[in-house]
Amino acid sequence: MANDTRVIAIDAMGGDLAPAAVCDSLSLLTDLKCHFLVFGDQKRLQDFRFDSRLSYEIRHTEIVVSPDMGVSELRSARKSSIGLALSAVQSGEAHAVVSSGNTGVYLALAKIMLKTIDGIDRPALATKIPGREGSTFCLDLGANAECTVKNLVDFAILGEALAHAALGKDDIKVALLNVGTEEMKGNVLVKETAKILKRILPNYYGFVEGNDICKGNVDVIVTDGFTGNVALKAIEGTAKFIVEEVKSAVKNSAVAIMGALMAKPALSKLKSRFDPRLHNGAIFAGLNGLVVKSHGNSDAIGFANAVRFTYDLLNSNMLERIRENALKSQQHYQQFYGEMMP
Amino acid sequence: MANDTRVIAIDAMGGDLAPAAVCDSLSLLTDLKCHFLVFGDQKRLQDFRFDSRLSYEIRHTEIVVSPDMGVSELRSARKSSIGLALSAVQSGEAHAVVSSGNTGVYLALAKIMLKTIDGIDRPALATKIPGREGSTFCLDLGANAECTVKNLVDFAILGEALAHAALGKDDIKVALLNVGTEEMKGNVLVKETAKILKRILPNYYGFVEGNDICKGNVDVIVTDGFTGNVALKAIEGTAKFIVEEVKSAVKNSAVAIMGALMAKPALSKLKSRFDPRLHNGAIFAGLNGLVVKSHGNSDAIGFANAVRFTYDLLNSNMLERIRENALKSQQHYQQFYGEMMP
Repeated sequence: MANDTRVIAIDAMGGDLAPAAVCDSLSLLTDLKCHFLVFGDQKRLQDFRFDSRLSYEIRHTEIVVSPDMGVSELRSARKSSIGLALSAVQSGEAHAVVSSGNTGVYLALAKIMLKTIDGIDRPALATKIPGREGSTFCLDLGANAECTVKNLVDFAILGEALAHAALGKDDIKVALLNVGTEEMKGNVLVKETAKILKRILPNYYGFVEGNDICKGNVDVIVTDGFTGNVALKAIEGTAKFIVEEVKSAVKNSAVAIMGALMAKPALSKLKSRFDPRLHNGAIFAGLNGLVVKSHGNSDAIGFANAVRFTYDLLNSNMLERIRENALKSQQHYQQFYGEMMP
Repeated sequence: MANDTRVIAIDAMGGDLAPAAVCDSLSLLTDLKCHFLVFGDQKRLQDFRFDSRLSYEIRHTEIVVSPDMGVSELRSARKSSIGLALSAVQSGEAHAVVSSGNTGVYLALAKIMLKTIDGIDRPALATKIPGREGSTFCLDLGANAECTVKNLVDFAILGEALAHAALGKDDIKVALLNVGTEEMKGNVLVKETAKILKRILPNYYGFVEGNDICKGNVDVIVTDGFTGNVALKAIEGTAKFIVEEVKSAVKNSAVAIMGALMAKPALSKLKSRFDPRLHNGAIFAGLNGLVVKSHGNSDAIGFANAVRFTYDLLNSNMLERIRENALKSQQHYQQFYGEMMP
């Protein structure tokens, strides 16, 4: 293996369509300069043909984390395909890990095994949401139901580095989610966080509101995990609801069905733009290692896109950028709260 | 005026299209057994013809609250059309008030002048959100960026009474917005609130998530004003974004335009179902008096619907139900926290 080859640990057993979706996905990734460590049940994996151009090895485990396993059963999960894949990152053998498996167990194990980067108190779940003018990375989407000012400041650092790596540009606009854009609006948490972000982020944008998430006019939107989770699910629920209502309205009229068929080629372009498989891959940011969560019902195309996204991030200096900025931010933070003391 | 005639105070000068939209709206309401106190600038109101079947009187004031007036200027706002309309409710002359004006000033004045109902600590902004199986009343949508357990318990009482009055049924399902439906999910605020709601609401539904808002499978969703505001705006933003994207996708193809025209009659039924004018009217619930906020850019149809909604609520026992339940809830609340003390 060449020295610059990236090593990605793959949990072959996680998700509704595993192991088929995961195994099939790898054949779509032969163009990556990448070695795959594939964790799963040897007996079930041998049924699949891997492309001969692929650099990979299978690491056997019979233990699989079930979708309904609670975080109280973490001990047994360590020997599972998710746990061993994370171990490979922990030991330095792999640079990143991708799984479609049980989110709670995956994130809890990742946090315990990889630990947060120095200067970052809590990791956050981030994903890219497509919008009118572009995509926006939003975090935290539910890893932390309760957040402090320091947590939100950390999330801003994480989001900035993530967007910088993924979008390949320097002037990353980071915004804080609030109930209004004026300085006096909001709760203590966002008002205090805003004061610090103004100092530490050269491109701090200010407050944005819920309807700005789909505008895509900023690169990063930072919020606590409670609000972020509710907002993301509200967006998904609304999109699903509208599409269903339109379909059912059209279905009741023969002329409308004909019309819809005529509009279909134009709309299918739109549909493919919003295909969740193309946007697959949430990052559990802030850990010592790149941890990517693929959607639980990902098919081969979806999983392949999550791996491709992971590979692209590995080819950036994201973790180093987080390390540097987290330390700088911590100094600012201490200085700020030091100044405010009597 | 008959003894059972309802009196509604109308701010004729609030909103982008005032006073025309407000004055024109009244002619759409001649079927209501209602007397209107219309507050505004006599000189500007005399240009409009009011339907002769209408029972109304104009109360003159030249003072108008501008859209950008801050809540720091409340003193001068008291003599404005909004302030005087609220005074009429405060004095008992009117039973309810409707305005499309400056939300911040309106709500702040209403809170000061009408005060909260005994047992309710803070009022909340509530509105009806259309969904798949029905509509759901959501609150708080932004009146309180910071909430306590007691506040959320109060909002549940308010939402239950509001849905009971508006939907005319007894078994009102009240849910709490959270990041998951399991009991251990969420922050301390929702977990503690859930414990109390289980005791005081016979039809307490449990936790729902962001994607449940558009399902309409519960009657009331309770949340803090920060999360509620973000979620509502996220829903509005997503709906707007999808409609715009579909329009722009169709626009680029002649065949698709033709198809869209054919589907138009079927879709326009859907459009009218979602017409925001039909759902106009947010309630500032929990005050001694019925305070309704109409959307800032309401036209005559929108404003008329907000007044009609107000009239229907007046013909229910909503305020009495809130009073009764608030007192009962407070006893439970004290008992609960009493029991928990060592």
